[in-house]
Amino acid sequence: MPDHHSLIDLELAALSRWCNGDPDGFLAICADDVSYFDPFISRRIDGLAALSRYYASLRGKIFAKRHEMRAPLVQAGGELATLSFQFVSWGDNGGEMHWNCSETYRLDPPGWRIIHTHWSLTASNGDAAPTP
Amino acid sequence: MPDHHSLIDLELAALSRWCNGDPDGFLAICADDVSYFDPFISRRIDGLAALSRYYASLRGKIFAKRHEMRAPLVQAGGELATLSFQFVSWGDNGGEMHWNCSETYRLDPPGWRIIHTHWSLTASNGDAAPTP
Repeated sequence: MPDHHSLIDLELAALSRWCNGDPDGFLAICADDVSYFDPFISRRIDGLAALSRYYASLRGKIFAKRHEMRAPLVQAGGELATLSFQFVSWGDNGGEMHWNCSETYRLDPPGWRIIHTHWSLTASNGDAAPTP
Repeated sequence: MPDHHSLIDLELAALSRWCNGDPDGFLAICADDVSYFDPFISRRIDGLAALSRYYASLRGKIFAKRHEMRAPLVQAGGELATLSFQFVSWGDNGGEMHWNCSETYRLDPPGWRIIHTHWSLTASNGDAAPTP
């Protein structure tokens, strides 16, 4: 079982580089068989080679002056763990973006590697109370 | 390790009931500690009790005359497995909806149970080639 804080720290370190135009922090912790959804692509991306090409197209283009991980939750069992959280990023123009994120990590010794990522946009009332 | 087909079959059976207004197929295969994102709620739902209340609000309201799971992928390790797929549903008015879905399942003997769900809407060019 992973130390939950260490998975969260791994994700935070990659997010910090991501928000500074640098996708290599994520690529360094993705497994060869990583699969990936985000709201801007119409098909799941399968495999590190394909994800690397996609991230290359974003290198140097994504900047957030501030970002925040909210309500991280690690659900683990044996050699896999799913980390889910909400994420808020603030652009230079002050615009906020609200995200839902799920990451499945696998213990590929000596470290944990991402095998699945799902990013989506949170419902627009990102600061409201939950529906149910 | 799960039989990948059996996880897909479990999901398909629950989806079939879901598309007929019946959320109980999913509730029956969710663990007590299930967590849940969809594009219509502003916070993750944590726990089966809260998810049951949310699904109760949808019971008898969601119908699709046809639905299709596309490109299911199971990534498993020990007692956890992540199933990701794309999903298309057709309403009575002929409208199509395109979804991305990720489910993390855990082996809670005697069966597999969902511990995390993430639904989101696919980029609007749902039938186009992938971006990268």
